[in-house]
Amino acid sequence: MNFCSACGAPLQLSTPPGDDRPRHVCPACNRVHYQNPRIITGTLPVYRDRVLLCKRAIEPRRGYWTLPAGFLEMGESLAEGAIRETWEEAGAEVDIEGLYAVYDIVSIGQVYVFFRAALRRPQWKPGAESAEVRLFAAAEVPWKRLAFPVIHVVLSQYWTDRERGEFPLHNQRIDESHWSLVQA
Amino acid sequence: MNFCSACGAPLQLSTPPGDDRPRHVCPACNRVHYQNPRIITGTLPVYRDRVLLCKRAIEPRRGYWTLPAGFLEMGESLAEGAIRETWEEAGAEVDIEGLYAVYDIVSIGQVYVFFRAALRRPQWKPGAESAEVRLFAAAEVPWKRLAFPVIHVVLSQYWTDRERGEFPLHNQRIDESHWSLVQA
Repeated sequence: MNFCSACGAPLQLSTPPGDDRPRHVCPACNRVHYQNPRIITGTLPVYRDRVLLCKRAIEPRRGYWTLPAGFLEMGESLAEGAIRETWEEAGAEVDIEGLYAVYDIVSIGQVYVFFRAALRRPQWKPGAESAEVRLFAAAEVPWKRLAFPVIHVVLSQYWTDRERGEFPLHNQRIDESHWSLVQA
Repeated sequence: MNFCSACGAPLQLSTPPGDDRPRHVCPACNRVHYQNPRIITGTLPVYRDRVLLCKRAIEPRRGYWTLPAGFLEMGESLAEGAIRETWEEAGAEVDIEGLYAVYDIVSIGQVYVFFRAALRRPQWKPGAESAEVRLFAAAEVPWKRLAFPVIHVVLSQYWTDRERGEFPLHNQRIDESHWSLVQA
């Protein structure tokens, strides 16, 4: 961040009065430009005893499997964003069953939110960012070929909870050490 | 958003290839400047049968009561941000008991996250943004003098859940109509 997005002047790094950390401040118009974590919202789309995964057609992690998820947009709720991403990436229609997991990925300034969702019918179509979309039973999940550690964490928590028949909310931090869960 | 924060050139509003909505795009360096909802994280600090509220010392809603909460910063988890805000606004130390509520306030591009938290000791001190901090039993809550509809929603859900002895996660949308809950 080099220039003020409001007036175009070069920014300075300084701690505003009453604040406790350096921010990008505009010396011309005095605006403070905050940087905050962003939200990624997605679903765990289930059909009977199987979960729908998407093989990534784009970098990073092209060729690895993931759940449909993406940045929350202005003008939509978390659930609406999750439904939209599931449609865009997997061409699948889902009904939301509940907020299931909230993960802090502090190192990259992201908060991941997953909803449990029911596939309306066994129908899907890879979107522009997906090379392939298919259902996986628990025994078929390509654990080492998952795109991101967070996908491994949410899927393994899901299968464990499913056996118990209870789906409590999960909230935890995901850090660099979780990369050992998948093929780097 | 008028200028590119990376190179300083005037921005244009256009839909990037493969995208489905207009974004602020830089014609000079081709960067796309996304705008995404921001996260506000806070606690519901409980001591025995009472909840700690802060009277706002600043606008908007100066003089109205709220829960300690604020924008999630880079480099912290949701729970860490909630603990920090509770310390900054109420001078109170809490232990997190669990993620309790996630609210979509779509009209202003905010996602509110609240944790149930236990006050370590009956001790607090108003921070710079608070004029007063005190504990309220259920019967004492100043319902019409709450600062924001979301505070009314989370507090009423909390007291209902507390009577039942169960605290399921709440996720709902808060919209303009919820302003009828508090004194506008």
